[in-house]
Amino acid sequence: MSIVVVGTVAFDTVETPFGKGENVLGGSATYFSTSASFFTDVSLVAVVGEDFPDEHINYLQSRNIETSGLQRIPGRTFHWSGRYGYDLNEAQTLDTQLNVLMDFQPELPETYRDAEYLFLANIDPDLQMQVLEQVNKPRLVACDTMNFWISSKPEALRKVLRKVDIVIINEGEARQFTGEANLVKAARQIISLGCKRLVIKRGEYGVLMFTAESVFAAPAYPLEEVFDPTGAGDTFAGGFMGYLSNTGDLSEDGLRQAIVFGTVMASFNVEDFSLERMKRLEYKEIESRFKQFKALTSFKDVSV
Amino acid sequence: MSIVVVGTVAFDTVETPFGKGENVLGGSATYFSTSASFFTDVSLVAVVGEDFPDEHINYLQSRNIETSGLQRIPGRTFHWSGRYGYDLNEAQTLDTQLNVLMDFQPELPETYRDAEYLFLANIDPDLQMQVLEQVNKPRLVACDTMNFWISSKPEALRKVLRKVDIVIINEGEARQFTGEANLVKAARQIISLGCKRLVIKRGEYGVLMFTAESVFAAPAYPLEEVFDPTGAGDTFAGGFMGYLSNTGDLSEDGLRQAIVFGTVMASFNVEDFSLERMKRLEYKEIESRFKQFKALTSFKDVSV
Repeated sequence: MSIVVVGTVAFDTVETPFGKGENVLGGSATYFSTSASFFTDVSLVAVVGEDFPDEHINYLQSRNIETSGLQRIPGRTFHWSGRYGYDLNEAQTLDTQLNVLMDFQPELPETYRDAEYLFLANIDPDLQMQVLEQVNKPRLVACDTMNFWISSKPEALRKVLRKVDIVIINEGEARQFTGEANLVKAARQIISLGCKRLVIKRGEYGVLMFTAESVFAAPAYPLEEVFDPTGAGDTFAGGFMGYLSNTGDLSEDGLRQAIVFGTVMASFNVEDFSLERMKRLEYKEIESRFKQFKALTSFKDVSV
Repeated sequence: MSIVVVGTVAFDTVETPFGKGENVLGGSATYFSTSASFFTDVSLVAVVGEDFPDEHINYLQSRNIETSGLQRIPGRTFHWSGRYGYDLNEAQTLDTQLNVLMDFQPELPETYRDAEYLFLANIDPDLQMQVLEQVNKPRLVACDTMNFWISSKPEALRKVLRKVDIVIINEGEARQFTGEANLVKAARQIISLGCKRLVIKRGEYGVLMFTAESVFAAPAYPLEEVFDPTGAGDTFAGGFMGYLSNTGDLSEDGLRQAIVFGTVMASFNVEDFSLERMKRLEYKEIESRFKQFKALTSFKDVSV
């Protein structure tokens, strides 16, 4: 089992009330693939510039992430700067330097094309479509997006949504995309565009997973120390897709377990800056927190 | 089993994007007692003015709510006006006319004093304390409060918190009261003041219940139609305390089930203005939604 992910590999400069990280490793594909690598084989498609150090590539490879689809081209690596206040739910973007991302043409190495699982992380929907055209017959395709593409390329985005099985977006993006304040109605609208499932991320409030017939609600794992929410959504998606790829179980039960694994992975990621927490994470900690999450959410049925 | 509740009975004028209710029945004790009455006997302590119609008292009595502790005194009934935007999470208060509430001195009829369950709904903490001094030995006492008392009477409020078993407040109030942005830390601080349990209401995001050792997280029930969130918190508390009073089961399991019943009751209440939905609610609907809530939140453990 393996996953292909296309997205960004970036330098991030992040300020939170608890500290600052300058030019730290970031990007949607980085967070996703690191998280998924705890469960399955991951192959990365992204672009970096000449300034991207081998150290980071070595790290990805140390997690068994296939990097032959990681292009290194002339220019500087994509750089995002943001700041979080005490309300850690939403970042204020201070600066975005697209750099090499402006010329990115994703190209899947031959060995990637039979991937069973494909994740289109947040990136220009036209590029997401280019990737879709290069894979043969993936068993499951999921995608993310962001407010910028919703407002600037809604048509391209709709085209992508029709081609994927699962859409994974933020609560605010679901509302923005549909113009509907009620989240259940927004979810129905998005599903009616053609995807089978919609996963709505709500930050510290957890996740909702919708199909046309069912809803699953999972809270976030309550944490006493949240240092840096950057990458939480992609880390969630990595745990979710990674677990699915590991088990191959796409039943409702399997998907719900995958949501919880995604939630658990995101809860670790926010405990430190950049990928620091992931770098020292061990699989047995994931198991242990899954069990704590079960205890956190369990209640007995009543004989009503 | 029976509950005594002290709080407000009010006229509300509420605007939401879906309509307007003028001088409709409202107030914390009204919502609480109506909700609890589906599970247990409720005795009400509150004050209204001469303008309060028999129709509303007849309604409360039709729900078997004991109203001998409902004082009717010269003057006008407490009147709250508020407005909700499309984001239905928080009301903007347009006007508050305390009227008879300014002279309210809660007095418990003799028959109320042996109540096993006591709920101190949102009201001046000095009045909450007066009520505490009038009861004999309740098995369980819970209280609510609001931002206004947190800023204007923090000392009186702390005194009350030391005397109650369970504090039930909003997320924003927990943060305001402690000056702590992290909710887990805020919860620890509040528990360290002397109460055993803390229930944090998060509106459409559900509920967290803390003890010094455990956390329980329940999402809200996702609804396609939310008309009026007024009274949702008190309706939640009424279902929660009502179920506890009904079963007498104060174990962690019993309390978690009570949280879910509270959540279910709140989900009905927001489906229409004022108490309209509660007026046509049948017990079998509550049972049915409890089961739907179980299905909404269930996931299988993994043999990790």
